Amino acid sequence: MKLYDYFRSSAAYRVRIALNLKGLDAQREFVHLQKAQQRAEGYLAVNPQGLVPALDIGDGAVLTQSLAIIDWLDETHPAPPLLPANAAGRARVRSIALAIACDIHPINNLRVLNYLTNTLGASDEQRDGWYRYWIDIGFEALEQRLAREPGTGSYCHGDTPTLADVCLVPQVANARRYKMDLTPYPTILRIDAACTALPAFAAAAPDKQPDAF
Amino acid sequence: MKLYDYFRSSAAYRVRIALNLKGLDAQREFVHLQKAQQRAEGYLAVNPQGLVPALDIGDGAVLTQSLAIIDWLDETHPAPPLLPANAAGRARVRSIALAIACDIHPINNLRVLNYLTNTLGASDEQRDGWYRYWIDIGFEALEQRLAREPGTGSYCHGDTPTLADVCLVPQVANARRYKMDLTPYPTILRIDAACTALPAFAAAAPDKQPDAF
Repeated sequence: MKLYDYFRSSAAYRVRIALNLKGLDAQREFVHLQKAQQRAEGYLAVNPQGLVPALDIGDGAVLTQSLAIIDWLDETHPAPPLLPANAAGRARVRSIALAIACDIHPINNLRVLNYLTNTLGASDEQRDGWYRYWIDIGFEALEQRLAREPGTGSYCHGDTPTLADVCLVPQVANARRYKMDLTPYPTILRIDAACTALPAFAAAAPDKQPDAF
Repeated sequence: MKLYDYFRSSAAYRVRIALNLKGLDAQREFVHLQKAQQRAEGYLAVNPQGLVPALDIGDGAVLTQSLAIIDWLDETHPAPPLLPANAAGRARVRSIALAIACDIHPINNLRVLNYLTNTLGASDEQRDGWYRYWIDIGFEALEQRLAREPGTGSYCHGDTPTLADVCLVPQVANARRYKMDLTPYPTILRIDAACTALPAFAAAAPDKQPDAF
């Protein structure tokens, strides 16, 4: 397997965590997003969306979209499972993961921030306000759910890490990078601390990657 | 089951299609997004995210996030399946679905458009340009994939509708509502026509809903 990766991409960070939790090793190829290498012809042939991550699974097949990649990893390498055994539990974990992966992360993606600045002429302050606004809106709802729903345990769902945690930790890292006040989200912070204490999460962190600068 | 629905929400539209494909009937409660009913206390108790759809599955449990709901429907009502039988096929279908559900739809969501207009002072022209830009970027990549990948059949994947089609059709409907030129996307148009010819897709269309105005 070969992972097309970029240290600061939180979608790639999710896949790094999942690979580590599964104990899987992948070759790495780094695609430098701030040098626009994802728009180079070579990479567009790998992934026409021009986004990381992508996972080459070896027979010429390339998987894209972090959550689709992680589902594939979970189906083909079932231990330890990243989804609960029952359908209602799986729906809850997926819902938490998607509330981050659909409703926070893509709105704050680099290409969206570039559009705000370059096409709409947003100031740096407006751009950073946008970034923090969508995290706050998403985290407010998520904090409520995690604090009140009985499914929450040491991690987002129960006492082992799931897909929900795999999505949560990179999003918290982004919030910290933007120096956000996270004290309104104590349950999120508690779960983030539980996750990042695990070697699988810690080793996947952006500043631990070979392409970090 | 009770579906919290809004005719023009493309995430709700996905769930309506999936219910129809499965031959399932759900009670409906309409949440009027342009009257901000999704931010009313009553609905926030159902879904703290304040987004539709949500699916009350009857024992006090409410599922949120359209793709998590559809996965749950597919797991609990397996016929006809909305995902292929093999892991690589499932990864492809999920990847197409997520390329729409993460990378196009949330960036064009009503709340994002409202932020552009109300907080950033974007003009109507800038807002509409934004809307079309993210659909074009997403459809360009998707058209390439659908045109060249051998997995494509009458539908996005093979010759029966899958989760990928369930996400594609509402996104095409949005593009049409914004009067976009879709001729650069012949494969998308061909698949959309095949889908909308099916009663399950046709009956889920926004203008066929009781709350449409």
